[in-house]
Amino acid sequence: MADKKMVEEITSMDEDFAQWYTDIVRKAELVDYTSVKGCMVIKPAGYAIWELIQQQLDQRFKEAGVQNVYLPMFIPESLLQKEKDHVEGFAPEVAWVTHGGLEPLQERMCVRPTSETLFCDFYKNDIHSYRDLPRVYNQWCSVVRWEKETRPFLRSREFLWQEGHTAHATAEEAEARTVQMLNVYADFLEEVLAIPVIKGQKTEKEKFAGAEATYTVEALMHDGKALQSGTSHNFGDGFAKAFDIQFAEKDNTLKYVHQTSWGVTTRLIGALIMVHGDNEGLVLPPRVAPIQLCIIPIQQKKEGVLDKAYELRDKLSGVARVKVDDTDKTPGWKFSEAEMRGYPLRLEIGPKDIEAGKCVLVRRDTREKIEISLDEVESKVSELLETIQKEMLERARAHRDAHTYSAVTYDEFKKIFNEKSGFVKAMWCGCRECEDQIKADLSVTSRCMPFEQEKLSDTCVCCGKPATKMVYWGRAY
Amino acid sequence: MADKKMVEEITSMDEDFAQWYTDIVRKAELVDYTSVKGCMVIKPAGYAIWELIQQQLDQRFKEAGVQNVYLPMFIPESLLQKEKDHVEGFAPEVAWVTHGGLEPLQERMCVRPTSETLFCDFYKNDIHSYRDLPRVYNQWCSVVRWEKETRPFLRSREFLWQEGHTAHATAEEAEARTVQMLNVYADFLEEVLAIPVIKGQKTEKEKFAGAEATYTVEALMHDGKALQSGTSHNFGDGFAKAFDIQFAEKDNTLKYVHQTSWGVTTRLIGALIMVHGDNEGLVLPPRVAPIQLCIIPIQQKKEGVLDKAYELRDKLSGVARVKVDDTDKTPGWKFSEAEMRGYPLRLEIGPKDIEAGKCVLVRRDTREKIEISLDEVESKVSELLETIQKEMLERARAHRDAHTYSAVTYDEFKKIFNEKSGFVKAMWCGCRECEDQIKADLSVTSRCMPFEQEKLSDTCVCCGKPATKMVYWGRAY
Repeated sequence: MADKKMVEEITSMDEDFAQWYTDIVRKAELVDYTSVKGCMVIKPAGYAIWELIQQQLDQRFKEAGVQNVYLPMFIPESLLQKEKDHVEGFAPEVAWVTHGGLEPLQERMCVRPTSETLFCDFYKNDIHSYRDLPRVYNQWCSVVRWEKETRPFLRSREFLWQEGHTAHATAEEAEARTVQMLNVYADFLEEVLAIPVIKGQKTEKEKFAGAEATYTVEALMHDGKALQSGTSHNFGDGFAKAFDIQFAEKDNTLKYVHQTSWGVTTRLIGALIMVHGDNEGLVLPPRVAPIQLCIIPIQQKKEGVLDKAYELRDKLSGVARVKVDDTDKTPGWKFSEAEMRGYPLRLEIGPKDIEAGKCVLVRRDTREKIEISLDEVESKVSELLETIQKEMLERARAHRDAHTYSAVTYDEFKKIFNEKSGFVKAMWCGCRECEDQIKADLSVTSRCMPFEQEKLSDTCVCCGKPATKMVYWGRAY
Repeated sequence: MADKKMVEEITSMDEDFAQWYTDIVRKAELVDYTSVKGCMVIKPAGYAIWELIQQQLDQRFKEAGVQNVYLPMFIPESLLQKEKDHVEGFAPEVAWVTHGGLEPLQERMCVRPTSETLFCDFYKNDIHSYRDLPRVYNQWCSVVRWEKETRPFLRSREFLWQEGHTAHATAEEAEARTVQMLNVYADFLEEVLAIPVIKGQKTEKEKFAGAEATYTVEALMHDGKALQSGTSHNFGDGFAKAFDIQFAEKDNTLKYVHQTSWGVTTRLIGALIMVHGDNEGLVLPPRVAPIQLCIIPIQQKKEGVLDKAYELRDKLSGVARVKVDDTDKTPGWKFSEAEMRGYPLRLEIGPKDIEAGKCVLVRRDTREKIEISLDEVESKVSELLETIQKEMLERARAHRDAHTYSAVTYDEFKKIFNEKSGFVKAMWCGCRECEDQIKADLSVTSRCMPFEQEKLSDTCVCCGKPATKMVYWGRAY
């Protein structure tokens, strides 16, 4: 009864996807709500996922020549205002500090919503000559955006992220770095998070405030909605001119630097939930699973069972992150809990198994049960974790592909969005008006102009004028 | 000429210790100043030290059963006010957020100066029964205290730290955890940072706002001033009562939890500078040196020299964090720069060395030059890094001991502080009045009542009444 109850408490994703999501973040103990409206507590099980994301992404950054730094969390108002488009984009959604201690501040400051202006202010004094370039810096920190509607991981007033900010001698180098970092994100999402992405460029309407070009990786969630999962911006020399960041070339002429920025956030944890989760709870790809294997002893009070469980934990700790659930709950309860928390593998071992020199492995993703000899447990666990990682990506890709449609006429386009959910590929003339029309008609936005272009027809799906680009459209988080 | 200039630009520590410190943090490129008054930019060379501190301390935390979490950066004013002593201690030095976006907030919030109140608010809902205890949580984040006078790493309006916050079923368990974490800090400082510390308890006057007891690790800087390097607080059930954090015991009675908190900050980087630095610059203990060995090629334009340098880098990267300085600066300039940045070892290699199958290793701490065969370079580098780590701690301990004095009478006490600087051990009656008197007379504060007590006399060094404790006194940062 108790075992069943725990499972029943999760809403089915087909019934109410939003409630299913909320149930998982709470029941898998990833986050908790707080007295601070719109902000969340990231609990140990959630934060451990973020730590694995940080470690593996940071390693890729370092291999790409990125150095970590830390800049202040406050931005004086005059600094925020230096770049016109940027301040217009962010000023309406920042938190303002007006008092320090008992005194009012001479100039109010906002808590950083992003740090372009601070990096510019720093680079202005830090960069003098071509010898100082490129600067390829990143910081891991939290940022604040005063959102009205919030959801754990997906949209909260404070969130954790990394923000890379670079400065280069030439436009070409800045463009190359912008694309390089987008590729780092795409590879990371596919190889570590098992989430396939569409890489492409944002339209003028959807690009970042102050950028010349914004690139994005877009993922498809289980409910067919799109999630912008990482962005990389090329600023050209716009910020450099606003902040006067010049360097002396080899021939002593002064030039403006070209800049980029790029970031991913704790929203990636939301993506993990919505791409891989099922009605039993979270399903974590092994590479970001804080616990990869949970050993559940059966009849653990019988002599030798717990000892064997601990022995297996010690034996397996070389190939996996392992825990033994030795609490006094029933095995059934432990199975449900292991499923809810998304451990990629569970290992069941009881007196009969020990006698037979065997144990049972259960895959979280497929729920397949595999009986194996204790002699081969290490190699089998290691192999299964690889298989799960690989197959989770394949399944996510198959789901994404099955929910990606093409439309040539506006009727087709509307029919798809009215009946189904997913990505729709369609041609576009390049006009803001068509984007606005499509949004008004269907609550659908342009996700990106993919790097891999196809020619579906000659004309814009909306207005019928000559098309310039194929666009992925979708309903977005 | 150029080589000499770089060295000359550092003020000698005997001439002006404060200026020497400032010169090092700038010339070793650890920090930069910003437009945000009282805040700093931590540059790559400084942040890489913090990353090594984080990694090694976090590993020790995890071995001690600590789990990482993340709580909001904002504290609503009503939450901050719940514990009377705590709000009195912190309210005068917090930054207040009054507007979110374009709207004034209904209740203003401060940026966390420390997160006791947020953890209490979280634990109140998270802890129900004895099964939920202990909670041993920690977060790595930044905090803000609106200091009037600031110095890089030592005191700034925003700084990075970790803050552990725990909840326990009994007073004994809370006390044991408080001391356990102080010991983690003491071991970490000695083994990793090569900084010896005095462990002890703060007096009533010096303890943390809201704590029943505060424990501290105190280190002595090169100029004889003390630096509080880490603290651990036992709150008893004071916060639990203020926030109503109760749990059901096994017999179903409700009890208040007992809580602790403990933290270290980027101030540890200031300690590294002031304990180990010299007039040539920074000196980093190998375990926190982002670069442990710098290879400097001599006559690098001659054929084979750079190739050999890269070959050595690849060979040595298994035993040390290595870089090759292959810039077009002169070797003399590179030597000065390697010394300024505190790399524990430098390796010099030129055409004659290559011919003879040799190279020269130079220790940063002693500046000793050691000629070795290229065949033994791996084992020698590995051994030298161990030796340097060990001897840096020994030298720091010898310096500390040589600057630790004892005083029985107040005349002796005053004479020492008027003529010398360092720790002075002296007996104390336990009265706040004597602490105030000593501070008024000598600008000296009680650093701690050490765990290792000695009986120097029967009477208080200040008032002559019966003594209860031996205290370490000092001038503090």
